[in-house]
Amino acid sequence: MTHLNLLVGGPTSEWPDQLTAGKVSGDWIGVDRGTLRLLSMGITPLVAIGDFDSLSASELTQVKSSVSDIRQAIPEKDETDTELAITVALKEYQYDRLDIYGATGGRLDHFLANLWLVLKPRYRQFAPQIRFIDRANTITFYLPGEYALKKEADKKYLAFVPLEKVDQLNLIDEKYTLKDEDVPYPISYASNEFVGQVGHFSFKSGLLAVIQSRDN
Amino acid sequence: MTHLNLLVGGPTSEWPDQLTAGKVSGDWIGVDRGTLRLLSMGITPLVAIGDFDSLSASELTQVKSSVSDIRQAIPEKDETDTELAITVALKEYQYDRLDIYGATGGRLDHFLANLWLVLKPRYRQFAPQIRFIDRANTITFYLPGEYALKKEADKKYLAFVPLEKVDQLNLIDEKYTLKDEDVPYPISYASNEFVGQVGHFSFKSGLLAVIQSRDN
Repeated sequence: MTHLNLLVGGPTSEWPDQLTAGKVSGDWIGVDRGTLRLLSMGITPLVAIGDFDSLSASELTQVKSSVSDIRQAIPEKDETDTELAITVALKEYQYDRLDIYGATGGRLDHFLANLWLVLKPRYRQFAPQIRFIDRANTITFYLPGEYALKKEADKKYLAFVPLEKVDQLNLIDEKYTLKDEDVPYPISYASNEFVGQVGHFSFKSGLLAVIQSRDN
Repeated sequence: MTHLNLLVGGPTSEWPDQLTAGKVSGDWIGVDRGTLRLLSMGITPLVAIGDFDSLSASELTQVKSSVSDIRQAIPEKDETDTELAITVALKEYQYDRLDIYGATGGRLDHFLANLWLVLKPRYRQFAPQIRFIDRANTITFYLPGEYALKKEADKKYLAFVPLEKVDQLNLIDEKYTLKDEDVPYPISYASNEFVGQVGHFSFKSGLLAVIQSRDN
């Protein structure tokens, strides 16, 4: 499994400690201010994405002199920077997974746009390859099927989050179970927990997010 | 217009300055740790909601000796603390509006559960009366109709956020406009802006959130 990391521009206060300490392994893509933050940590991203209009002239010079592959999303294609990053990472560079940091905190319109991009028909296929990580949460995405999910050691809570109508949701061996539940609209089944180290679940249609989280 | 404020237990770092400074007018309901935070600001809430199981014995004593009306949500009714607070504020006490603080930051399963409670049939009618407020964002909710929305002085960005399928969305005089757009699934039309002090919009079916926001 190859993986690539993506840093978007949300507040650094929401970063997981591992990122703050510069200990996340693997290559990076930076979006907008994310690129500058990577450079200041001594990381040169493979690709920088954005129009960089929030950067000063000297910051822009730093980005241009450091990163060889710089791209801009095309608004006419109704494409956001994060969406372009997914295309570059998973289609063009053909990494198996993309871990996205910096997508939480601050502006909620940005967070929701990022959370929901897997609902767009052209990105839906990539849902299982995308993960959002911040200091309190890990979000993963699932297409219909049967799954065995591993507990993350530093997380206590487990939430099953249908992002749209989901049919026949089964939570099989978690603290709170469900049996063939048809979920008609988005809902966050919050504050569930693993019983052991692995939780099994399945569903027949729709798109499901799973959030492992902890209190800060 | 009468309004009531609700404080839930999210991190204080996400509070708007006005709340941190203790300058939000009106009466309060506290949920869980929110009640304790209100008491420590010298505010005695009308109602305290929660099982308070994260509080120490002395903290619990403080709550019980200060607040006369203490309630617990009934899990068997599939009711969350925030949902009970909405029922108490808007049905029982018959306030016109409810402003919710402390719902962002930290755990995303909690945030999404709160954001989406207006999609539940029994809370949908209350959507226009509910507002989420944090330091970067104000979220309001709309049922189908025609609206004139006032710009908040301290916010720059405007996002239209269908929480489900929305038909014939018109953004009439904003920076980016839409004409009779049928939106098939949740999407965050982020980073729009007001042109003047008022923005007009309309839609025919579904439930729409609007987020005014600013960079921190």
